[in-house]
Amino acid sequence: MVDVENFNWEGLLIDIGIIAAQIIGILIAFLIVKAIGNRVIGRFFDKLTKKGDVTKGRALTLQSLAENVFSYVLIFILVATIFSIFGLSVASLIAGAGIVGLAIGFGAQGLVSDVVTGFFLLLEKQIDVNDYVTVGNLDGIVEAVGLRTTQVRSFDGTLNYIPNRDITTVSNHSRGNMRALVDIGISYDADIDKAIAVIQTACENVTLENETIVEGPDVIGVQAFGMSDVTLRVIAKAKNGEQWAVERQLRKAIKEALDANGIEIPFPHQVNITKNSEQA
Amino acid sequence: MVDVENFNWEGLLIDIGIIAAQIIGILIAFLIVKAIGNRVIGRFFDKLTKKGDVTKGRALTLQSLAENVFSYVLIFILVATIFSIFGLSVASLIAGAGIVGLAIGFGAQGLVSDVVTGFFLLLEKQIDVNDYVTVGNLDGIVEAVGLRTTQVRSFDGTLNYIPNRDITTVSNHSRGNMRALVDIGISYDADIDKAIAVIQTACENVTLENETIVEGPDVIGVQAFGMSDVTLRVIAKAKNGEQWAVERQLRKAIKEALDANGIEIPFPHQVNITKNSEQA
Amino acid sequence: MVDVENFNWEGLLIDIGIIAAQIIGILIAFLIVKAIGNRVIGRFFDKLTKKGDVTKGRALTLQSLAENVFSYVLIFILVATIFSIFGLSVASLIAGAGIVGLAIGFGAQGLVSDVVTGFFLLLEKQIDVNDYVTVGNLDGIVEAVGLRTTQVRSFDGTLNYIPNRDITTVSNHSRGNMRALVDIGISYDADIDKAIAVIQTACENVTLENETIVEGPDVIGVQAFGMSDVTLRVIAKAKNGEQWAVERQLRKAIKEALDANGIEIPFPHQVNITKNSEQA
Amino acid sequence: MVDVENFNWEGLLIDIGIIAAQIIGILIAFLIVKAIGNRVIGRFFDKLTKKGDVTKGRALTLQSLAENVFSYVLIFILVATIFSIFGLSVASLIAGAGIVGLAIGFGAQGLVSDVVTGFFLLLEKQIDVNDYVTVGNLDGIVEAVGLRTTQVRSFDGTLNYIPNRDITTVSNHSRGNMRALVDIGISYDADIDKAIAVIQTACENVTLENETIVEGPDVIGVQAFGMSDVTLRVIAKAKNGEQWAVERQLRKAIKEALDANGIEIPFPHQVNITKNSEQA
Amino acid sequence: MVDVENFNWEGLLIDIGIIAAQIIGILIAFLIVKAIGNRVIGRFFDKLTKKGDVTKGRALTLQSLAENVFSYVLIFILVATIFSIFGLSVASLIAGAGIVGLAIGFGAQGLVSDVVTGFFLLLEKQIDVNDYVTVGNLDGIVEAVGLRTTQVRSFDGTLNYIPNRDITTVSNHSRGNMRALVDIGISYDADIDKAIAVIQTACENVTLENETIVEGPDVIGVQAFGMSDVTLRVIAKAKNGEQWAVERQLRKAIKEALDANGIEIPFPHQVNITKNSEQA
Amino acid sequence: MVDVENFNWEGLLIDIGIIAAQIIGILIAFLIVKAIGNRVIGRFFDKLTKKGDVTKGRALTLQSLAENVFSYVLIFILVATIFSIFGLSVASLIAGAGIVGLAIGFGAQGLVSDVVTGFFLLLEKQIDVNDYVTVGNLDGIVEAVGLRTTQVRSFDGTLNYIPNRDITTVSNHSRGNMRALVDIGISYDADIDKAIAVIQTACENVTLENETIVEGPDVIGVQAFGMSDVTLRVIAKAKNGEQWAVERQLRKAIKEALDANGIEIPFPHQVNITKNSEQA
Amino acid sequence: MVDVENFNWEGLLIDIGIIAAQIIGILIAFLIVKAIGNRVIGRFFDKLTKKGDVTKGRALTLQSLAENVFSYVLIFILVATIFSIFGLSVASLIAGAGIVGLAIGFGAQGLVSDVVTGFFLLLEKQIDVNDYVTVGNLDGIVEAVGLRTTQVRSFDGTLNYIPNRDITTVSNHSRGNMRALVDIGISYDADIDKAIAVIQTACENVTLENETIVEGPDVIGVQAFGMSDVTLRVIAKAKNGEQWAVERQLRKAIKEALDANGIEIPFPHQVNITKNSEQA
Repeated sequence: MVDVENFNWEGLLIDIGIIAAQIIGILIAFLIVKAIGNRVIGRFFDKLTKKGDVTKGRALTLQSLAENVFSYVLIFILVATIFSIFGLSVASLIAGAGIVGLAIGFGAQGLVSDVVTGFFLLLEKQIDVNDYVTVGNLDGIVEAVGLRTTQVRSFDGTLNYIPNRDITTVSNHSRGNMRALVDIGISYDADIDKAIAVIQTACENVTLENETIVEGPDVIGVQAFGMSDVTLRVIAKAKNGEQWAVERQLRKAIKEALDANGIEIPFPHQVNITKNSEQA
Repeated sequence: MVDVENFNWEGLLIDIGIIAAQIIGILIAFLIVKAIGNRVIGRFFDKLTKKGDVTKGRALTLQSLAENVFSYVLIFILVATIFSIFGLSVASLIAGAGIVGLAIGFGAQGLVSDVVTGFFLLLEKQIDVNDYVTVGNLDGIVEAVGLRTTQVRSFDGTLNYIPNRDITTVSNHSRGNMRALVDIGISYDADIDKAIAVIQTACENVTLENETIVEGPDVIGVQAFGMSDVTLRVIAKAKNGEQWAVERQLRKAIKEALDANGIEIPFPHQVNITKNSEQA
Repeated sequence: MVDVENFNWEGLLIDIGIIAAQIIGILIAFLIVKAIGNRVIGRFFDKLTKKGDVTKGRALTLQSLAENVFSYVLIFILVATIFSIFGLSVASLIAGAGIVGLAIGFGAQGLVSDVVTGFFLLLEKQIDVNDYVTVGNLDGIVEAVGLRTTQVRSFDGTLNYIPNRDITTVSNHSRGNMRALVDIGISYDADIDKAIAVIQTACENVTLENETIVEGPDVIGVQAFGMSDVTLRVIAKAKNGEQWAVERQLRKAIKEALDANGIEIPFPHQVNITKNSEQA
Repeated sequence: MVDVENFNWEGLLIDIGIIAAQIIGILIAFLIVKAIGNRVIGRFFDKLTKKGDVTKGRALTLQSLAENVFSYVLIFILVATIFSIFGLSVASLIAGAGIVGLAIGFGAQGLVSDVVTGFFLLLEKQIDVNDYVTVGNLDGIVEAVGLRTTQVRSFDGTLNYIPNRDITTVSNHSRGNMRALVDIGISYDADIDKAIAVIQTACENVTLENETIVEGPDVIGVQAFGMSDVTLRVIAKAKNGEQWAVERQLRKAIKEALDANGIEIPFPHQVNITKNSEQA
Repeated sequence: MVDVENFNWEGLLIDIGIIAAQIIGILIAFLIVKAIGNRVIGRFFDKLTKKGDVTKGRALTLQSLAENVFSYVLIFILVATIFSIFGLSVASLIAGAGIVGLAIGFGAQGLVSDVVTGFFLLLEKQIDVNDYVTVGNLDGIVEAVGLRTTQVRSFDGTLNYIPNRDITTVSNHSRGNMRALVDIGISYDADIDKAIAVIQTACENVTLENETIVEGPDVIGVQAFGMSDVTLRVIAKAKNGEQWAVERQLRKAIKEALDANGIEIPFPHQVNITKNSEQA
Repeated sequence: MVDVENFNWEGLLIDIGIIAAQIIGILIAFLIVKAIGNRVIGRFFDKLTKKGDVTKGRALTLQSLAENVFSYVLIFILVATIFSIFGLSVASLIAGAGIVGLAIGFGAQGLVSDVVTGFFLLLEKQIDVNDYVTVGNLDGIVEAVGLRTTQVRSFDGTLNYIPNRDITTVSNHSRGNMRALVDIGISYDADIDKAIAVIQTACENVTLENETIVEGPDVIGVQAFGMSDVTLRVIAKAKNGEQWAVERQLRKAIKEALDANGIEIPFPHQVNITKNSEQA
Repeated sequence: MVDVENFNWEGLLIDIGIIAAQIIGILIAFLIVKAIGNRVIGRFFDKLTKKGDVTKGRALTLQSLAENVFSYVLIFILVATIFSIFGLSVASLIAGAGIVGLAIGFGAQGLVSDVVTGFFLLLEKQIDVNDYVTVGNLDGIVEAVGLRTTQVRSFDGTLNYIPNRDITTVSNHSRGNMRALVDIGISYDADIDKAIAVIQTACENVTLENETIVEGPDVIGVQAFGMSDVTLRVIAKAKNGEQWAVERQLRKAIKEALDANGIEIPFPHQVNITKNSEQA
C-alpha cells in the first residue's frame, strides 16, 4: 500500500535540485566540447584538401563521417554520465537488461543494421559526397554520408534522409563515361540506307562541335518495327554528367538534318475501310 | 474445486471500496500534475521563442516533444502506482515476466521501434513542425512530432497519424530552393530555334515580374520526340514553396507568347489512309 | 498398454456430471454479471454526456471501450474459474507452459500487438466513434473502437472489422476544414484571362449562397497543358463533411457560367492528315 | 553393427498383431462416439432454434463450431491413446520435445494463429453462417466457421476453404441497409436542371413500386466532368441484399425517362481537324 | 598435425568394404519391402472401391497418401539403419544436435509446415484427387495429394508440384452446381423490354434441349451503361463442370435470336465533330 | 599492451613455412582425388545408361547430383583437415561456436533450406535434366540439378542459376501430352454454323497430315463476344513439345480455309456519327 | 555521484597520448603491408594468366577475390590489435558479448549472408568478371566479384554495387550461343506461303554474309493473329554477344525483301460505318 501522508516531499525536492544542477553542468560542457570538436575536424580536412592528398569529394565524405562519429560518441558519454548521477553504471545496465534488453535489442536491431551498412558504404567507397546516385526509388546528389543516414538531394530540390539499412543496391552514376542514346522513327516508305547516312553525318557534325563526346555517336541499325515507323537507334559515349546535354543536342541536329533531306518522322498511321451501314 | 458457498463476499466488497478510493485519488492527482506540467512547458517555450534563440518551427517541435515525453512518464508512474496498490512492484513484474513477458516483448517490439526512430528523427533534425514532407505514401505539412507518432496534415485537410516506425526515408521539401519545370510540345513543322527564342524571352519577362524566382528560367533544349509534338523543357529555381506558383505563371506566359508568335501547341495527329472495302 | 476392460466407466460419468453442473452454474452467473455490468456502463456514460463534460463522440468511444475491457476481463475470470474446477491454477498454467507456451506465445503475438495498438489509438485520440477515417485500404465511418478490433462502416453500408494491428497510419478526415478542388479544361483557343474572370465571378456567387464555404473559392491559374485543353484549377475550403457538396455546386455553377459566356469545355481533338492509299 | 541374422522376427510379428488389434478397436470406438456426438449436437441446436432463443444463422454458426471442437478433441484423444499403446505419455512427449519440439512449434505456429483468430471471429460475432462477406480477395456466402478454416461459397459456385489466419479484415455486407448508386452521363449540351428534374421524377416512381427501397433515391448533383459527358449521381438506400436489384431497376427507369424527354446519353465525342497532307 | 606417412590405409579399405556390403544389403531389402508394400496398398484400396464404401476420388486420395506415408517411413528407417552402421543412434543424433540442430530446424521449418498443412488438407477433405481447384495462381485438376506436395495438372497439360505450405486458401470448383453467366450489350436505340423478352425466350429454348442446366437461365436486368451499349446480364446454374458448355450454347442461341429479331449488338460508337483547320 | 620490439618474427616465419607446405600438399591431394572421383562417377553412369535400367534424363540427373555431393564432401574434408593443421578440431569448433555460431546459423539458414529443397526435388522426381520447366519467373530447359542450385537454360540462350530455396512451385511441361489452343475471331455478320463447319473440316485435314496430334482438334463453340468479332475456340491435344508447331499449322490452315470460303476475320469496327460543329 | 573536482585530467591526457602514438604506428604498418600484399597478388595472377592455365576472365575474378579477402583479414587484425591496446582480447569480447552481441548478431546477419552467398557464387563459377549478367532488376557487365558485394556496370555507364545477399537467381548471358528473334506482321490479304518464301530467302542471304550466325535463321510459321496483321516469326542462333547485331541486320534485310516483292507490313486498320446523326 502506498503511504501517501508520510511521504518525504521536502527531501525529494532537494535531491531533484542537486541532480538538475549536475545535469545542466554536464549539458553545458557537452555543448562546448561539441563546438570545439567540430571546428578541429573542419580545419583538419581543410588542410588535407589543400595538400591535395585526397579528392575534394572524398574529403567532404570523410569530414561528414568524422563529425557524425564524434557526435554519437559524445552523446553516448553524455547519457552514461547522466545515468551515473542516478547511480546506474552502463555495465550494470547492460548486464541487468534481461528481457527488457532483449526487447529493445530487437527493436533497435535496425539501428545496428544501419551502422553496419554505413560502415561498408564508406569502406568500399560506394558513394562519395557530390556523386549522382540511385538508391531505392530515389535519385539525386549525395549531400552527406553518415553512420545512420545518408542525405541525397533530388533534382527538384527535395532533401531526402535515407536510413542506411534501406540502401542495398547502390547505382552510382558518377563513375566513368555515360552513354547517350537517341531513338528516331522514320517512315516505312523511307529509304533506310539513305536515312542512316543522313543521321550519321548529322551526328558527326555534332561531334566536331561538342568536346564532351568521347565515342561515337553512331547509328547502330534498325532497332524495331513500330506501329507506324521504323525505329533507328543512335548511341554515343559522353563525359560523366554531360550525357543529357549531348542527347538534347543530337535530337535537335538529327531533326534538322532529316527535315533538310525530306525524310519524314511519321505521325501515327491508320488504314480506314468504309462500310455502308446496313445495320443502322 | 471452487467453494462457492463459503466465499467471503463481504470482505471482498470492502477491499474493492478501499482500492477504488485510492485509484480515484491517484487519478485526480495525475490530472492536476498533467495540467500544471503542460502550462509550465508552454510558458518556457514561449519565452525561448521571444528571445529568438531558436527558430519558431524548431521551438514548436521541441515543445510538442516535451509534452509528449512528460505525458508518457506520468502515465508510467500512474500505472506503477496503481500496480503497487495491488502489492506488485514494477521490478518484480519485469523480473517475473518470463515467457508472458517475452510474448509481450515481441508484440510491443513495434513500440520500441517507434521510439528509437522518433528519437533519431528529432536528433538528426530530419523534420520540424511546419515542414512540407513526404513520408511513405503521404505528403503534407508536419503538425506534431512525437516519440511514437508523427502528425502530418494533407493538403486536402486530412490529419494523418503516422507511427514513427513507418517513417523510413524522409523526403523533406522545405530545405532550400525548389525547381520549377515546364514541358511544352511544339509542332513538328515549327522552327525549333525560333520557338526556343520566343519561350526564352517569355521566361525572362516572368523573371522581371516575379521576385521568388532565384535562377533561370531557361529553355534547356529538345527533351523528347513525342507522338505528335517535339517537347521542349524549361527549368527554373524558385524560393521554397513558390515553385508551383512559378510554374503556373510560366505556363500562362509561354502559352500567350507562342500564340502571339503563331507557334502551335499541336493536338494529337493521325495519318489516315482510305481503302475501298473489298471485304465488306 | 490401455486396460480397456477394468476401466471405471461409472465413476467417470459421475465426475462428468458434477463438473458439468458446476460449469453451467458458472456460465449462468457469467451471463447475469455481464448484463448488469453493461447496463451500469451504459447509464454512467449517459449521465456523463448529459452533463456535457465530454463530446458525444468521445463518450461513445469510451463507452464501447469500457464494455470491451469489461467483457474480456469477465471471460478471463470465467476461463480461470473453469480451469480451477479441473484443478489447474492460472499461475501454474503460465509457469508450466514451457515450449508449448512459447509456441502459443508466437501464435498469439498478433493479439498482444492488437491490444498495444488499440491502447495507443485511444490514448492519443487518433480516432473517435463517428469520425470519417481511412485505415489501410478502407474508408468509412468509425462505429466502435475496441481493444482488439475497430469497426468501420463503409459508405456502401458494409461493416468492416479491422484488427487493430492492421491499423498503422490513420488518416482522419474529421479534424478541421476540408479542401474542395475543381479542375476545368478550357479550349486552347480561349482567352485565358477572360475564362479566369468568368470562373472567379461564378465562384464568388456560390460563396454568397453557401455558408459552409470557409475560404475561397479561387482560380489559382493554369495547372496543366492537356491533350486538347488548358486545365484551370479552382480551390476552396469548406466546413468538414461539406467539401463534396461544395464541389458539386461549384461544378454546376462554373459549367453554367462558361456556357453563358461562350467559353467551350472542349471534346478530345485530333488532327487528321489524309493520304491516298498507294499501298492498297 | 546391425545383427541381421539373429533378429527375432517372430516376436516382432506377434507384437505387431496385438498392437494392430488394439488400434482397430480404438478406431471403431472413435467412429461410434463421433457419430453419436454429432447427432446429439444436431438435436440440441434444432431445439434451440425452434425455441427462437437465437437467430437461425447464429445457431448454424455455433453448431458448426461445436462439431468442429468436438471432432478435434476426439482426434487428440485418439492420438494420445494410440501413443500410450506404444508406451509414450503425452506429457513426456511434450516435456521431452526439446529442439525437435521447438522446430515443430515454429512450423505449427500458423495452426495456433488459426485457432486464436477463429476464436475471436466467433466471440466478436464478426461472421455468421449465411452472411455475405469479403475476406482477403474472396467474397461470397459463409457456409461454415470452424476453429481452423472458414468456408465461403463464391457466387459462381466455387467453395473456398480459407485458413482463419488469412482472415484479417472482415468486410461483412450483411449488417444493415446497403447503398444503391447509379452514375449517368448526360450531354454537355443538355440543360442540367431539366435533366436532374427528369431523373428525380423517374426515381420517385421507382420508390412507389419497390418496397425494398428504404431511403431516396436522390440525384445529388454533378459528380464529374467526363471526356464527352457531364456525370450525374443518384444515391438510394435499399434493404440488405436488394441493392443490386434496385440499381438495375433504377438504371432501366432512368434510361426510359431520359429517352422520353429527349435527353441524350452521349457516345464518345471527338473534334476532327482536317489538314491537307503536305508531307505525304 | 596430420600424420600422413603412418596412416593405416589397409585397415581403412577393409572397413569400407564391410560397410559397403552392409549398405548394399539394406538397400536391396528396402527396395523389396517398398514394392511389396505398394502392391498391398493398391489391392486394399481396389477392394474398398469395389465395395462402394467410399467415392472413387476419395479412395484415390487416400491411396496416394498411404503410399506417401509408407515411403517416408521406409526412408526414415533406412537412414536410421545406415547411421547405426556408423555407430550413431538417431536419439543421440537428435540430442546432440545443439546449435547445428537449431540451424537445421530453422531451415527445415518449411518441411514441418508442409506436413502440418498437408495433414489438414486431407483431414478436412478440402481437396480430393480429380477435383478442379485453384490454389495460389494455379488452377487445374488434382492428380495427387501428398504429405509434402500436391500435384495439380493445368488444362494446358503442365504438371505442377505445389509444396503444401504454399496452399493457403483452396478454391474448390468441384463442390456443387456452378453458375453460367453471359453479358450481352444491346444498342442504346433498342427497346429494352423487347430485348429482354427475346433473350429470355432464347434461354428457355436452350433449357429444353440441355439437361445439365439446373436453374434458369434468366435475364436479370440492366447491369451497366457501357460506352456504346446497354449491358444485359443472363444468369443460370449448371451441373458441375458443364458451366462453360452452357455459356457457349447460350451465347450462340442469344446471338441468333437477336439477329432474327433485328436487335443489334453494337460496335463502338463515336460522334465526330468536324472543324476547319484554322491553325494549320 | 602490444610488445612490438620483442616479437619473435623469425619463429613466426618458420611456422608459416611449414603450414604453407602442408596446405599445398593437401590441395594437390584434393585435386587428384577429385579428378579420379569424377571419372569413376562418369563411367558408372555410362554403364547404367547402356544397360537401359534408367531413362537417359534420370541418369544425367543422378550423375550431376553424385558429382555435386562428392565435391561438397571433399571440400568439407579439405576444410576440416586445414583447420586441424591449426590445431582446431571440427567438433570443438561446432561446440564452441556459441553466439558467433548462432549468428552464422541464421546467416547460413538459406543454405540448409537449399539442400532440404534440393533433396526433395530429386526424391520426388519433380524435375529431370532436359525437362522443360517453369520455376519462379523463369522457364527453360533444365541443364543440371544440384543440392544447392539448379541450372535452367532459357530459350534465348541465357543460363540461369536458381538457388533451390527459390524453387517452390515447379511447373513441369514435360509430363504428358500438351494442349494446342487457337482462338479465331469471325465477323458479327457471319453465319456461325457455317464458320464452325469450315474450321472443323480444316482442322480434320491437319490431323490427317500431322502425326503428333493426339486428340482433336475440335471447335468447341462461341468463347466470347469481342468488340468487333465473335470468338471461336479450337482445342487439340499434341505430343509433348509439339504443341507450338501444331498451333502454328492450325492457324495457317484455318486462315486459308476461311479465306477460301469467304468468311472474314474482321478488323476493329467503329460506328461514326457526324455532327456539324455548332460549337467551333 | 560524479566527483568532478578531483578527476585526474593530467593522467588521462598522458594515457591518450601513448595510445594515440601506438594507434598511428599500427596504421602505418597496416598501410605498408596492404600495398605490398596487393602488389604480390597482382604479380602472381599476371604470371598465371601468361602461362595460360586459366582463362583471362577467371583470373581477373580470382585476383579481385584474393585482394578482397586479403583486405578484410588485414582489417580484422587491425581492429583486434587496436582493441588489445585497450586491454580487450577478441576472445573475451566474443565470450562476453551476451545480449549486446546477440543484437549485433541479428543486425549483422546480412553480412554473414553476403559472405556465404559470395563464396558459392565463386565456388560454382556462376559469374566471372566480364560476363554479361542479369541479377535482380539490373543487367550489365560484371566488373568485380567480392565476398560482400559484386560490381556490375550497366550499359548506360552506371556502376552498380550489389550486396551478394541480393543476388539470388543469376541469369548469365555469356554462356553459349544466343537466340536472335524477329517478328514481322504481314497483311491479312497477303499470300502466307509467298511471304514465308520471300523472308526465308532474305534470311539465307544474311547467313551467307554474316559469320556470327550459327544456326538458321528460319521462318517457323504463323505465330499469332494480330489486330491488323498476321505475325510471322523468324528464329536464328548467333555467337554470344552478336545476337542484337544479327537481329538488326535481319530486320533490315527482311524489310527490303518484302518491299521488293510488294508484300506490305500493314498499318493499324479500322472499319468505319457511317450513321447519320438522328440524335444530334
